[in-house]
Amino acid sequence: MERHDGTDGWTSKLQPPGYDAAVSDARLSQQVAFLVEADRLKTIIRQTPLVDNSRRENSAEHSWHLALAALVLREHAPPGLDLGRAIELVVVHDLVEIDAGDTFAYDPAGHLDKDAREQAAADRLFGMLPRDQAASFRAAWEEFEARETPEARFANALDRLQALLQNMGAGGGSWRAHNVTRAQVMTRMAPIESTLPEVWPFLLEVVDRFCALGAIVDRAD
Amino acid sequence: MERHDGTDGWTSKLQPPGYDAAVSDARLSQQVAFLVEADRLKTIIRQTPLVDNSRRENSAEHSWHLALAALVLREHAPPGLDLGRAIELVVVHDLVEIDAGDTFAYDPAGHLDKDAREQAAADRLFGMLPRDQAASFRAAWEEFEARETPEARFANALDRLQALLQNMGAGGGSWRAHNVTRAQVMTRMAPIESTLPEVWPFLLEVVDRFCALGAIVDRAD
Repeated sequence: MERHDGTDGWTSKLQPPGYDAAVSDARLSQQVAFLVEADRLKTIIRQTPLVDNSRRENSAEHSWHLALAALVLREHAPPGLDLGRAIELVVVHDLVEIDAGDTFAYDPAGHLDKDAREQAAADRLFGMLPRDQAASFRAAWEEFEARETPEARFANALDRLQALLQNMGAGGGSWRAHNVTRAQVMTRMAPIESTLPEVWPFLLEVVDRFCALGAIVDRAD
Repeated sequence: MERHDGTDGWTSKLQPPGYDAAVSDARLSQQVAFLVEADRLKTIIRQTPLVDNSRRENSAEHSWHLALAALVLREHAPPGLDLGRAIELVVVHDLVEIDAGDTFAYDPAGHLDKDAREQAAADRLFGMLPRDQAASFRAAWEEFEARETPEARFANALDRLQALLQNMGAGGGSWRAHNVTRAQVMTRMAPIESTLPEVWPFLLEVVDRFCALGAIVDRAD
């Protein structure tokens, strides 16, 4: 597509009225620093393996997988859902792990101080952005965590379903590695019943199958 | 947030009128199979390193980084851009690499048969989805590749800018590893001048700096 003069033939845009190069440069510096810092999410390792069991997945590629799942499973979402907002939530939802680390879903001790660790992380990380963006990114993260809006419920349901698909694809994954029980899986997956009801029968079938295989400990309490 | 009865208190939705469990199950099976197959994008390794130089990045986490960059840099995009569509394009844009592999931006030989490899990959991968979704995912990928719509130009500009940020953060990255020249970088980055004009001066400064460092070979042709 490139032409021989090294451009691709697109015309340059004029700056919009009111454009201030100095302000824009200061904002851009903060935005670039934030994007470079965000790279560290690729080094945060989750308990769930890749489907080929070659390694455990990281939180950045996991977040991409949720965005893809949002696009693929949109027809099962509640009517009227703002899909763009839901994808925004999944892209942002794990950034605090850069400082706070990943807390395993089935680790009660890790959840005791999860909130404090993540609040401090949000202060630092989102605080790298220009003030207006710091507020809007933090609001997106808090919306995800609160699980009250339809978009946050959909995003959280996908977060849980994706981990189930990883464990399913890998033949047991973190369920098997940590002796997770049926009761723990069902508590963790419960939000899927109301948010993605068409997916729920499939999920129950997977849990039954992996209990039968011994990959999930078949204990209801 | 979970209640002691193992639910989180959300009410179940009734099925919408016309809901057909058998049709939904068949579609869901295809969607789940596609999402499990998509996991393989996490094993496709790019030439660009992580910023900490611990390893090279994979195409799944790279795609997440582009979605985040779209959110962070939205104010620099052309007015009227459909940001949700742009994010959809970046989430989908590298899936064909599962079969076709990543083609290094500065490898002319690899580009000779890139199109044929990727078309075959698109046939197989998107063909795993229900027919209507196969068509819409393929259309998103083709829109990204054609670089004609504002959303595709923005997505492509981010794809190039993110690689520059990785190499910058890592102190040279794939430029240094492959003796890439200034002329090659400028050709690769050219679409950013028109699509993200506010970012262009920053980019020129980075290229100058890494030429001075010897990380980019300072040759204009």
